Amino acid sequence: MAAKPGARVSEAETKKQLEDFGDEILQDVKKGKNPKFTTLSRAKSNIIFNEKAGFLSLGSQSEERNFLNIAQSKRFMQTIAIAAKCHKFVKENLHTSIRGLFYQLKYSLGEDIDENIFNEQAESNPLIEDLEAALSTKRESLNLNANRRGVLAGNLRVIDNFGNERTETDTSKLGRSGWAIPSDVDNDIEFTDVKAKYVLVIEKDAVWQRLNEDGFWKKENCILISPQGQATRGTRRLIRKFADMDLPVYVFNDGDVWGWYIYWTIKTGSINLAYIGNEIATPSARFIGVTLSDMKRYEFLKNMTMKASEGDLKRCQEMLEYQWINKHKEWVEELQNAIKLKVKLEQDTLQGPRLTFIDDYIKDKIKNKEFLP
Amino acid sequence: MAAKPGARVSEAETKKQLEDFGDEILQDVKKGKNPKFTTLSRAKSNIIFNEKAGFLSLGSQSEERNFLNIAQSKRFMQTIAIAAKCHKFVKENLHTSIRGLFYQLKYSLGEDIDENIFNEQAESNPLIEDLEAALSTKRESLNLNANRRGVLAGNLRVIDNFGNERTETDTSKLGRSGWAIPSDVDNDIEFTDVKAKYVLVIEKDAVWQRLNEDGFWKKENCILISPQGQATRGTRRLIRKFADMDLPVYVFNDGDVWGWYIYWTIKTGSINLAYIGNEIATPSARFIGVTLSDMKRYEFLKNMTMKASEGDLKRCQEMLEYQWINKHKEWVEELQNAIKLKVKLEQDTLQGPRLTFIDDYIKDKIKNKEFLP
Repeated sequence: MAAKPGARVSEAETKKQLEDFGDEILQDVKKGKNPKFTTLSRAKSNIIFNEKAGFLSLGSQSEERNFLNIAQSKRFMQTIAIAAKCHKFVKENLHTSIRGLFYQLKYSLGEDIDENIFNEQAESNPLIEDLEAALSTKRESLNLNANRRGVLAGNLRVIDNFGNERTETDTSKLGRSGWAIPSDVDNDIEFTDVKAKYVLVIEKDAVWQRLNEDGFWKKENCILISPQGQATRGTRRLIRKFADMDLPVYVFNDGDVWGWYIYWTIKTGSINLAYIGNEIATPSARFIGVTLSDMKRYEFLKNMTMKASEGDLKRCQEMLEYQWINKHKEWVEELQNAIKLKVKLEQDTLQGPRLTFIDDYIKDKIKNKEFLP
Repeated sequence: MAAKPGARVSEAETKKQLEDFGDEILQDVKKGKNPKFTTLSRAKSNIIFNEKAGFLSLGSQSEERNFLNIAQSKRFMQTIAIAAKCHKFVKENLHTSIRGLFYQLKYSLGEDIDENIFNEQAESNPLIEDLEAALSTKRESLNLNANRRGVLAGNLRVIDNFGNERTETDTSKLGRSGWAIPSDVDNDIEFTDVKAKYVLVIEKDAVWQRLNEDGFWKKENCILISPQGQATRGTRRLIRKFADMDLPVYVFNDGDVWGWYIYWTIKTGSINLAYIGNEIATPSARFIGVTLSDMKRYEFLKNMTMKASEGDLKRCQEMLEYQWINKHKEWVEELQNAIKLKVKLEQDTLQGPRLTFIDDYIKDKIKNKEFLP
């Protein structure tokens, strides 16, 4: 029943998954049994760091959801309603957001059963995750669009079979704009003619624009991606897809808790999305900078730091406790250094001496393989 | 010295503007006079609603900034430093963000003069506005990129002369992604072969994606834009450019204070950006919905409302006091209704009955010219 992780899920397959899911429940009902389904626990106790593979995933702890259980019956029914809606969306070949799904549920169930059955979207969100984990699929394959954000430029082509029309985009020909990374980079979409040597991920769109103007990706033959802040599911999945094509992935972020967090969610995945960690984490990613030790080589950076807040320092301490971080002595050093110096350093600072200084900084780091793991 | 509002500013022109600005100050210095320049006051008292033109702009109240004034000398010097940097960027033909500018200033001035001269970016931001207003230009023409956000699909071509390379993008061929609206839509960029009949602006990207999937812009021959929340300077300016091509502009937002605010900033501009109101406001814009009176025609919407918070209701009251809003009896009615019913209504609700219901809703509204002014 489960789709092979990372494999492209066809609409027919997803439809079948949902139908099998419904059939099993229907069989229970017909046999007079308590209808139920099994999903993986997403509780903290079942989130494990897969040391060998290098990403956060769910353990084997499963959970049963069943109807004849006073604590579960409402959620059970809601999940079935969600599955039915997704089945309809897949059949219609139409997509919507989880907000759109919420209002469809509210519309369909509002009058027939109980006007409060889906009062808050917060109620439906964890149930979508229940369903994703139960089916070993991603919401994108259930025709639910996640938020999108992120931009790309580089020597490759995107072939997009979207809404019964096929478009081809050469992402080296999009000028100042770049290519907007969509919600779903798996279904009915392909990335071909990938001629780049590596992927460079830049936290801030403003810095991406700077490098795009310099034609950095052209001169260096890389794929230039900005998640435009925290990376969305789509952007993380796309980075992983390039890594699966054996491209090295280098991440260039702010030297602060937020920049580090963005890096670690790209590299090892996140606790919230551990249930799809095997598809969106890129364990091979490396951190280019900005690092606090950059201040040793580039004197001027000492005058460019900002004061870290108490919250920042607390977060540094927390990060030091994560086994996927503290297993790297280089990161322990970086974080301890941040706590000691009480400063942070933005990637924009590298435009200080001249706007194109940042280009040379990145090239040097890559040439000398000066990364944090 | 001032550029004609709305006109494309060439690099040579901007360079000349900045040089004239510097020359005048230099002349003062040479003559032993107190160096000074004049800008427009951006104080509340000088923000006027231009009734006839229909947008917020600055009045004629000007302000002098001069060096030999203990309260102004630091700011005066900082502004000159900003102008010098922008002159350099224009000469180099390179762009950066206001954060990049801040670090360039910090780098150049940090050691020579006073290490605290630009300690906070908050210090440099109003000075950039001083300079924009003094030169009657926009920061985009000074090679400063503003934040960008927003997406577009439709039958038109973008010709982008960017970084010494010319690219042409057919925005009807970008599949699920759409075209990412850049920071600067005026300089070295053209919009040609605009074949659409109108512009439809959709507050939420999720709803934009829904309509894009339906090929709404293709069937209706319109330009489909989402500002993806509050409209950036670039997105507002682009909407205005289409309006200048005599395209009607319809805005489809949430029926709540945030949705209304986004509409009014597109239509009349905003208090913060009144100094460039004549370039970014689109007074001809009309509001399609969601309106509270939609609940009369579409019964199901009554079950889809959300409770308005105290803050929402307070904001409604404030909006009722703006002359550019309360001059329209339809808006007074809508806002009073919202206060009375204490509810708000999201645009996503229109996906309740079926995902494509929203398409018909919009078509009906446009066909019947059912807009709020």
